[in-house]
Amino acid sequence: MSRAISPILLNGNWQMSAGTRHFQAFNPATRQPLPQLFPISDWSDIEMALTAAKQAQWDLMQLPHERRASFLEKYAERLEGRRKELAATAAAETGLAEEGRLLGVELPRTIDQLRQAAQAVREREWMQAIIDTKHQLRSMLIPIGPVAIFGPNNFPFAYNAISGGDFASAVAAGNAVLAKGHPLHPATTSLLAGECLDALRETGLPPQTVQMVFHLEAADGLRLVQDPRLGAVAFTGSRRGGLALKAAADQVGKPIFLEMGSLNPVILLPGALEERFEDILKTVSGSCLLGMGQFCTNPGLLFMIEGPATERFLDMMANTYAHAPLAPLLSQDVQKQLMESLKSWIDAGAKLKTGGRPSDQKGFSFENTLCIVDSERFHERGSQLQKEAFGNATLVVLHKDVNDVARSINSLEGQLAGSIFSHTQEADEDAYRQLAPLLRQKVGRLLNDKMTTGVVVSAAQNHGGPYPATGHPFFTAVGMPSSIRRFTMLACYDNVRPYRLPEELRDKNPTGSMLRRIDGVWTKGDVTPSTHF
Amino acid sequence: MSRAISPILLNGNWQMSAGTRHFQAFNPATRQPLPQLFPISDWSDIEMALTAAKQAQWDLMQLPHERRASFLEKYAERLEGRRKELAATAAAETGLAEEGRLLGVELPRTIDQLRQAAQAVREREWMQAIIDTKHQLRSMLIPIGPVAIFGPNNFPFAYNAISGGDFASAVAAGNAVLAKGHPLHPATTSLLAGECLDALRETGLPPQTVQMVFHLEAADGLRLVQDPRLGAVAFTGSRRGGLALKAAADQVGKPIFLEMGSLNPVILLPGALEERFEDILKTVSGSCLLGMGQFCTNPGLLFMIEGPATERFLDMMANTYAHAPLAPLLSQDVQKQLMESLKSWIDAGAKLKTGGRPSDQKGFSFENTLCIVDSERFHERGSQLQKEAFGNATLVVLHKDVNDVARSINSLEGQLAGSIFSHTQEADEDAYRQLAPLLRQKVGRLLNDKMTTGVVVSAAQNHGGPYPATGHPFFTAVGMPSSIRRFTMLACYDNVRPYRLPEELRDKNPTGSMLRRIDGVWTKGDVTPSTHF
Repeated sequence: MSRAISPILLNGNWQMSAGTRHFQAFNPATRQPLPQLFPISDWSDIEMALTAAKQAQWDLMQLPHERRASFLEKYAERLEGRRKELAATAAAETGLAEEGRLLGVELPRTIDQLRQAAQAVREREWMQAIIDTKHQLRSMLIPIGPVAIFGPNNFPFAYNAISGGDFASAVAAGNAVLAKGHPLHPATTSLLAGECLDALRETGLPPQTVQMVFHLEAADGLRLVQDPRLGAVAFTGSRRGGLALKAAADQVGKPIFLEMGSLNPVILLPGALEERFEDILKTVSGSCLLGMGQFCTNPGLLFMIEGPATERFLDMMANTYAHAPLAPLLSQDVQKQLMESLKSWIDAGAKLKTGGRPSDQKGFSFENTLCIVDSERFHERGSQLQKEAFGNATLVVLHKDVNDVARSINSLEGQLAGSIFSHTQEADEDAYRQLAPLLRQKVGRLLNDKMTTGVVVSAAQNHGGPYPATGHPFFTAVGMPSSIRRFTMLACYDNVRPYRLPEELRDKNPTGSMLRRIDGVWTKGDVTPSTHF
Repeated sequence: MSRAISPILLNGNWQMSAGTRHFQAFNPATRQPLPQLFPISDWSDIEMALTAAKQAQWDLMQLPHERRASFLEKYAERLEGRRKELAATAAAETGLAEEGRLLGVELPRTIDQLRQAAQAVREREWMQAIIDTKHQLRSMLIPIGPVAIFGPNNFPFAYNAISGGDFASAVAAGNAVLAKGHPLHPATTSLLAGECLDALRETGLPPQTVQMVFHLEAADGLRLVQDPRLGAVAFTGSRRGGLALKAAADQVGKPIFLEMGSLNPVILLPGALEERFEDILKTVSGSCLLGMGQFCTNPGLLFMIEGPATERFLDMMANTYAHAPLAPLLSQDVQKQLMESLKSWIDAGAKLKTGGRPSDQKGFSFENTLCIVDSERFHERGSQLQKEAFGNATLVVLHKDVNDVARSINSLEGQLAGSIFSHTQEADEDAYRQLAPLLRQKVGRLLNDKMTTGVVVSAAQNHGGPYPATGHPFFTAVGMPSSIRRFTMLACYDNVRPYRLPEELRDKNPTGSMLRRIDGVWTKGDVTPSTHF
């Protein structure tokens, strides 16, 4: 008996994909395929999606901002209403804990992010309206065109191409979206898309505003990012995938915003260990193993200085690792790649302290793994030892002294985040003063006495950083309204007649509370004859 | 007798280049080489420049902002003091009018831009300081690292790698600069570098803050942009040169900001011609031929609708072109490339209305040239007819109706600027409403009833636009403080101890007047216990 294949969201409707291939998700906890069949789209799906998205982009530009704000809120509300079903579906596809992680953290975060985006749409601060009355020049940020979003495997909601931060930001800016779900959690993406479509309809946005496909051929992905109808691309995932899309986008000058993972080094200074040994041991072990280490901000790299305290710390950490419960990894592929990265570390001279093998205890799982390497090897074999091991494996680099740590920091690639733990009094201050400026240049977010894992949705957040953690260190993927600007272009109006200006650039403040820069002064007021030059 | 070769500015001193090749500039008015010899740097010069710049970058980060502001002002003052000599030198190398253009416009603009940059440094608005007290997250923009600047041939001061907008922006952000002058005006660049070095010394900035080479091998340019010591690149010039650097930079994920020229389409609607025929004729001809058309915002493309008024307009425009005085082009190469672009237009079906040949009337000059092509050809042979003809040549595309113009706009590549002239009353409103949204997507700056040539240095300016006019449509190359952000990266401080924060992110406002976003409110105030969450 042939089973039905799930439809995709194209041109405002659920439609059958024209693709002839299909796939199934796996339950990582049972290692068994899930029954539902999902299509791998072919180019004709993408062609239709691009045409619909381009048309929706024009339509969106005619509609008041309030519609987008309402949509984002309605969508958030609908997700809240179906949270149990969403969490259960995502748990089956990802092996992530249904209560603690999905219901308790990720869904609320996703819902909150959509609401923050709605607020940003209303406030319009992200538009950066600037008025120069003397020269009759007015400028602001406008949507960049339809945005293709490629979602990652590890956050079925908060980074899902149809519900996550990229989605919320792209829609907030006024863009139509072409969402490419991750093939590890298609049923979750399908549920989200259903709520999304209903929310579009209920709030009067064009239903073509959002297209969703579950999967596509790699070649079609490259063709998609080069298509002239597309304005920009967002990608979260592996470096290999990201760099392939980047090369295609770069070739045609298409803005692409990438988040390609990171080692997120954590430096434990001796004074901190001396002062808060137990506390740091618990914090570090907990953070490194959180969610089986499957976060882009997972601290995969610890820098320590040799000594008896460090030895004791690592012994106890290994003990914690050996006894900490396992949970399934997201997929067999994650398990396999973790093994490969580990092999690369060991080939380069790292020594296994604990773990090191796949485990069949809990689905596709892996023993909690701690490796140790000396700084000399780390400097010599950087490319192998800086290979990300996505999952529950940690590499500790042992240094002779602070200068040696400085050298390691200088050898690092760009990172999302990095942290320094130091004594609360003077003990580590010289070391901090030497190391922090070096680390500052390598990371998007610098932390003190705290692990890198949590990424609060805040205007002051930076979930970004120097290449190859991302594609451009000016932009952040998390935080409202700052993450919105990725999906905009700067538009100047020079001597444009007042009645033809967008309302944000007219003399009268469009909301009475929008912040604009008028002749050098940020104000919520109007342009008045007295403010004119 | 072997003549002395000019030194380059390396590591805070005038030094002899290690390069063994050299070059001379030409006086485009006389077509004769100028006597002074300048070196073509080899990699060892660049190697030294990179090492010095990287060290200066660290040193700069330890110094108060006020030093950079003082330097920018001192440098402006010194340029003012030597304006006559600077203008005479640049005139000899570029053939640009000494009084009207260089002394009257470009030098004052350059000086004003340096002063605006100094003001931006003091105000610190460009840093976009954001404080979230609830989550102990604080972020701002910080310098991205040494910046390599490649200057163009057409603005010896305002875009010179050592005095122009990119230079002012990069230094304002706190970056050391590696300036690569343009080989058409080395003596001008050398004079500027002398004033720059003196200004650095007088204001207590590291003299290594700015390195300057006159020329380098193409391969070394590519190697330079890929060097890990370099933080970002700025380039203004030809598309060929820009794309070569972009490919190299993209490969290693280096932020590169390009300005690669543009056709800057101007649309003359029928009602406008009917209403202000003479006025528009004068404005359009004057702007198209200004500075022999050697501006990146030169309107190289006119869109008109067929009819008797258009015919008469083009006859009179041709007449104006035939009688307008010639001036030398910047170089023999500019003359040659103009001829090649013209040939490409004519091969694709454009008809010569007037001009079309090199002229030996005034140095390397070219007859004022007007070409006409029908819209059908323009749609069919877009890649040939959208080839930029840098210089005093204009292509007019004749259309059947407004829909036909819409089609031409849709076929355009990305542009810096584009303008629509329309009737002051109702006559052209329908056409404007149809065309303006299409043009808006293609240009960085949209104008009404005005030519594209002038680019005021204003916070509301956008000298940028969609690819291939530039490399990224979010950023502008002109305007303070907005142009500064190209040379920054976003830096977040998460749970960083208060005394370790940069002063801009501490509770107390560092200047009493710096604008910061504290818990959602932009304010010049401090973080106070009552503002804390």
